Amino acid sequence: MKKILFRLIGMENYKQVVLIRNDLNMGKGKIAAQAGHAFVEAYKKTKMKNPDAVDIWEKTGGEKVVLKVSSESELIKYYDRLKRKFPTVLITDAGHTQIKSGTKTCIGVGPVKESEIDPITSELKLL
Amino acid sequence: MKKILFRLIGMENYKQVVLIRNDLNMGKGKIAAQAGHAFVEAYKKTKMKNPDAVDIWEKTGGEKVVLKVSSESELIKYYDRLKRKFPTVLITDAGHTQIKSGTKTCIGVGPVKESEIDPITSELKLL
Repeated sequence: MKKILFRLIGMENYKQVVLIRNDLNMGKGKIAAQAGHAFVEAYKKTKMKNPDAVDIWEKTGGEKVVLKVSSESELIKYYDRLKRKFPTVLITDAGHTQIKSGTKTCIGVGPVKESEIDPITSELKLL
Repeated sequence: MKKILFRLIGMENYKQVVLIRNDLNMGKGKIAAQAGHAFVEAYKKTKMKNPDAVDIWEKTGGEKVVLKVSSESELIKYYDRLKRKFPTVLITDAGHTQIKSGTKTCIGVGPVKESEIDPITSELKLL
Protein backbone atom coordinates (compact mmCIF):
# COMPACT_ATOMS: atom_id res chain seq x y z
CA MET A 1 0.00 0.00 0.00
CA LYS A 2 2.76 2.42 1.02
CA LYS A 3 4.76 1.50 -2.08
CA ILE A 4 1.81 2.00 -4.45
CA LEU A 5 1.09 5.39 -2.89
CA PHE A 6 4.77 6.38 -3.18
CA ARG A 7 4.84 5.48 -6.86
CA LEU A 8 1.69 7.47 -7.50
CA ILE A 9 3.16 10.64 -5.99
CA GLY A 10 6.60 10.01 -7.48
CA MET A 11 8.33 9.37 -4.13
CA GLU A 12 11.09 6.83 -3.65
CA ASN A 13 10.81 4.05 -1.08
CA TYR A 14 13.77 3.72 1.30
CA LYS A 15 14.76 0.64 3.27
CA GLN A 16 17.52 -0.84 5.37
CA VAL A 17 18.79 -4.18 4.11
CA VAL A 18 20.72 -6.84 6.02
CA LEU A 19 22.38 -9.79 4.26
CA ILE A 20 23.06 -12.61 6.70
CA ARG A 21 24.85 -15.93 6.35
CA ASN A 22 22.54 -18.93 6.41
CA ASP A 23 25.39 -21.48 6.61
CA LEU A 24 26.48 -20.86 10.20
CA ASN A 25 23.60 -22.64 11.94
CA MET A 26 23.02 -19.67 14.21
CA GLY A 27 19.97 -19.86 16.47
CA LYS A 28 17.11 -17.35 16.23
CA GLY A 29 18.44 -15.18 19.06
CA LYS A 30 21.95 -15.13 17.61
CA ILE A 31 20.58 -14.16 14.19
CA ALA A 32 18.50 -11.36 15.75
CA ALA A 33 21.50 -9.98 17.68
CA GLN A 34 23.83 -10.12 14.64
CA ALA A 35 21.23 -8.46 12.41
CA GLY A 36 20.75 -5.92 15.22
CA HIS A 37 24.45 -5.02 15.03
CA ALA A 38 24.16 -4.58 11.26
CA PHE A 39 21.00 -2.44 11.46
CA VAL A 40 22.39 -0.16 14.19
CA GLU A 41 25.85 0.27 12.59
CA ALA A 42 24.37 0.89 9.11
CA TYR A 43 21.97 3.43 10.64
CA LYS A 44 24.86 5.30 12.30
CA LYS A 45 26.98 5.29 9.13
CA THR A 46 24.09 6.46 6.92
CA LYS A 47 23.09 9.14 9.46
CA MET A 48 26.59 10.62 9.03
CA LYS A 49 26.93 10.20 5.27
CA ASN A 50 23.35 10.78 4.09
CA PRO A 51 21.12 12.24 6.84
CA ASP A 52 18.40 13.16 4.31
CA ALA A 53 17.92 9.50 3.41
CA VAL A 54 17.55 8.65 7.11
CA ASP A 55 14.97 11.43 7.56
CA ILE A 56 12.77 10.23 4.70
CA TRP A 57 13.09 6.60 5.77
CA GLU A 58 12.15 7.40 9.39
CA LYS A 59 9.10 9.38 8.34
CA THR A 60 7.89 6.54 6.12
CA GLY A 61 8.03 3.65 8.57
CA GLY A 62 11.70 2.64 8.71
CA GLU A 63 11.36 -0.47 6.52
CA LYS A 64 13.80 -3.31 7.20
CA VAL A 65 14.52 -6.38 5.09
CA VAL A 66 16.69 -9.42 5.90
CA LEU A 67 18.09 -11.46 3.00
CA LYS A 68 20.16 -14.62 3.14
CA VAL A 69 23.48 -15.60 1.59
CA SER A 70 24.96 -19.08 1.74
CA SER A 71 28.68 -18.59 2.46
CA GLU A 72 31.39 -16.19 3.58
CA SER A 73 32.56 -15.74 0.00
CA GLU A 74 29.06 -14.79 -1.14
CA LEU A 75 28.80 -12.32 1.76
CA ILE A 76 32.11 -10.72 0.79
CA LYS A 77 31.13 -10.58 -2.90
CA TYR A 78 28.03 -8.56 -2.00
CA TYR A 79 29.93 -6.44 0.51
CA ASP A 80 32.39 -5.40 -2.20
CA ARG A 81 29.56 -4.50 -4.58
CA LEU A 82 27.38 -2.69 -2.07
CA LYS A 83 30.04 -0.63 -0.31
CA ARG A 84 30.96 1.08 -3.61
CA LYS A 85 27.47 2.63 -3.81
CA PHE A 86 26.01 2.75 -0.30
CA PRO A 87 26.88 3.23 3.38
CA THR A 88 27.62 -0.41 4.18
CA VAL A 89 28.95 -2.20 7.28
CA LEU A 90 30.42 -5.67 7.70
CA ILE A 91 29.73 -7.34 11.06
CA THR A 92 32.31 -9.64 12.62
CA ASP A 93 31.20 -11.68 15.63
CA ALA A 94 33.11 -11.38 18.88
CA GLY A 95 32.60 -15.11 19.31
CA HIS A 96 31.35 -15.26 22.89
CA THR A 97 28.66 -17.74 21.90
CA GLN A 98 27.82 -20.31 19.22
CA ILE A 99 30.38 -19.35 16.55
CA LYS A 100 34.14 -18.79 16.25
CA SER A 101 35.53 -15.36 17.12
CA GLY A 102 36.17 -13.23 14.05
CA THR A 103 33.49 -14.90 11.91
CA LYS A 104 31.95 -12.52 9.40
CA THR A 105 28.21 -12.94 9.94
CA CYS A 106 26.32 -10.23 8.05
CA ILE A 107 26.24 -6.92 6.18
CA GLY A 108 24.06 -3.89 6.90
CA VAL A 109 23.15 -1.29 4.27
CA GLY A 110 21.44 2.08 4.46
CA PRO A 111 18.63 3.16 4.54
CA VAL A 112 18.96 3.46 0.76
CA LYS A 113 16.61 3.89 -2.17
CA GLU A 114 14.82 0.64 -2.98
CA SER A 115 15.17 1.30 -6.71
CA GLU A 116 18.97 1.49 -6.36
CA ILE A 117 19.62 -1.55 -4.15
CA ASP A 118 17.04 -3.99 -5.55
CA PRO A 119 18.86 -4.54 -8.87
CA ILE A 120 22.00 -5.60 -6.94
CA THR A 121 20.29 -7.95 -4.48
CA SER A 122 17.51 -9.27 -6.72
CA GLU A 123 18.87 -12.83 -6.75
CA LEU A 124 18.80 -13.15 -2.95
CA LYS A 125 15.87 -14.62 -1.03
CA LEU A 126 14.30 -13.39 2.20
CA LEU A 127 15.66 -15.15 5.29
CA MET B 1 36.56 -12.27 29.43
CA LYS B 2 35.43 -8.66 28.92
CA LYS B 3 33.11 -8.96 31.91
CA ILE B 4 35.80 -10.37 34.19
CA LEU B 5 38.16 -7.56 33.16
CA PHE B 6 35.46 -4.95 33.75
CA ARG B 7 34.79 -6.28 37.24
CA LEU B 8 38.49 -6.23 38.06
CA ILE B 9 38.83 -2.56 37.13
CA GLY B 10 35.45 -1.66 38.65
CA MET B 11 33.79 -0.79 35.32
CA GLU B 12 30.16 -1.53 34.55
CA ASN B 13 29.13 -3.63 31.55
CA TYR B 14 26.49 -2.07 29.28
CA LYS B 15 24.19 -3.91 26.89
CA GLN B 16 21.16 -3.47 24.70
CA VAL B 17 18.36 -5.89 25.48
CA VAL B 18 15.44 -6.91 23.26
CA LEU B 19 12.47 -8.88 24.59
CA ILE B 20 10.58 -10.56 21.78
CA ARG B 21 7.37 -12.60 21.67
CA ASN B 22 7.89 -16.29 21.03
CA ASP B 23 4.17 -17.02 20.55
CA LEU B 24 3.67 -15.37 17.14
CA ASN B 25 5.37 -18.06 15.02
CA MET B 26 7.44 -15.43 13.23
CA GLY B 27 10.09 -16.75 10.84
CA LYS B 28 13.80 -16.05 11.36
CA GLY B 29 13.84 -13.09 8.97
CA LYS B 30 10.76 -11.54 10.55
CA ILE B 31 12.29 -11.94 14.02
CA ALA B 32 15.54 -10.32 12.83
CA ALA B 33 13.70 -7.36 11.28
CA GLN B 34 11.48 -6.81 14.35
CA ALA B 35 14.46 -7.02 16.71
CA GLY B 36 16.25 -4.64 14.32
CA HIS B 37 13.49 -2.07 14.81
CA ALA B 38 13.79 -2.45 18.57
CA PHE B 39 17.61 -2.15 18.59
CA VAL B 40 17.64 0.92 16.32
CA GLU B 41 14.80 2.75 18.11
CA ALA B 42 16.22 1.99 21.57
CA TYR B 43 19.63 3.21 20.36
CA LYS B 44 18.12 6.51 19.14
CA LYS B 45 16.16 7.04 22.37
CA THR B 46 19.14 6.27 24.60
CA LYS B 47 21.45 8.46 22.49
CA MET B 48 19.13 11.39 23.29
CA LYS B 49 18.48 10.60 26.95
CA ASN B 50 21.80 9.14 28.05
CA PRO B 51 24.58 9.72 25.47
CA ASP B 52 27.28 8.77 28.00
CA ALA B 53 25.86 5.25 28.29
CA VAL B 54 25.91 4.93 24.49
CA ASP B 55 29.54 6.09 24.38
CA ILE B 56 30.74 3.53 26.91
CA TRP B 57 28.72 0.75 25.30
CA GLU B 58 30.08 1.54 21.82
CA LYS B 59 33.66 1.56 23.05
CA THR B 60 33.21 -1.82 24.73
CA GLY B 61 31.76 -3.82 21.86
CA GLY B 62 28.07 -2.86 21.71
CA GLU B 63 26.74 -6.03 23.37
CA LYS B 64 23.24 -7.13 22.35
CA VAL B 65 21.02 -9.73 23.98
CA VAL B 66 17.66 -11.13 22.80
CA LEU B 67 15.31 -12.65 25.40
CA LYS B 68 11.95 -14.29 24.84
CA VAL B 69 8.52 -13.73 26.35
CA SER B 70 5.51 -15.96 25.71
CA SER B 71 2.56 -13.59 25.24
CA GLU B 72 1.46 -10.01 24.63
CA SER B 73 0.49 -9.62 28.30
CA GLU B 74 3.98 -10.72 29.40
CA LEU B 75 5.53 -8.27 26.93
CA ILE B 76 3.41 -5.42 28.29
CA LYS B 77 4.17 -6.38 31.89
CA TYR B 78 7.91 -6.05 31.20
CA TYR B 79 7.41 -2.90 29.12
CA ASP B 80 5.68 -1.22 32.08
CA ARG B 81 8.48 -2.23 34.45
CA LEU B 82 11.38 -1.36 32.16
CA LYS B 83 10.15 2.00 30.88
CA ARG B 84 10.06 3.38 34.44
CA LYS B 85 13.84 2.95 34.74
CA PHE B 86 15.33 2.89 31.22
CA PRO B 87 14.97 4.32 27.70
CA THR B 88 12.55 1.70 26.37
CA VAL B 89 10.66 1.32 23.09
CA LEU B 90 7.67 -0.85 22.19
CA ILE B 91 7.60 -2.09 18.58
CA THR B 92 4.28 -2.54 16.79
CA ASP B 93 4.36 -4.34 13.46
CA ALA B 94 3.00 -2.63 10.36
CA GLY B 95 1.63 -6.01 9.33
CA HIS B 96 2.78 -6.17 5.73
CA THR B 97 3.84 -9.79 6.19
CA GLN B 98 3.17 -12.82 8.39
CA ILE B 99 1.32 -11.17 11.29
CA LYS B 100 -1.66 -8.88 11.85
CA SER B 101 -1.14 -5.12 11.57
CA GLY B 102 -0.78 -3.46 14.97
CA THR B 103 0.63 -6.54 16.70
CA LYS B 104 3.03 -5.67 19.51
CA THR B 105 6.09 -7.80 18.74
CA CYS B 106 8.99 -6.72 20.95
CA ILE B 107 10.62 -4.23 23.31
CA GLY B 108 14.04 -2.61 22.98
CA VAL B 109 16.00 -1.24 25.95
CA GLY B 110 19.15 0.82 26.24
CA PRO B 111 22.15 0.37 26.21
CA VAL B 112 21.85 0.18 29.99
CA LYS B 113 23.97 -1.09 32.85
CA GLU B 114 23.88 -4.87 33.06
CA SER B 115 23.75 -4.72 36.86
CA GLU B 116 20.56 -2.63 36.70
CA ILE B 117 18.59 -4.56 34.08
CA ASP B 118 19.56 -8.13 34.96
CA PRO B 119 17.57 -8.24 38.24
CA ILE B 120 14.40 -7.27 36.29
CA THR B 121 14.82 -9.74 33.41
CA SER B 122 16.49 -12.60 35.30
CA GLU B 123 13.54 -14.97 34.82
CA LEU B 124 13.60 -14.68 31.02
CA LYS B 125 15.50 -17.10 28.78
CA LEU B 126 17.61 -16.29 25.72
CA LEU B 127 15.69 -16.64 22.44
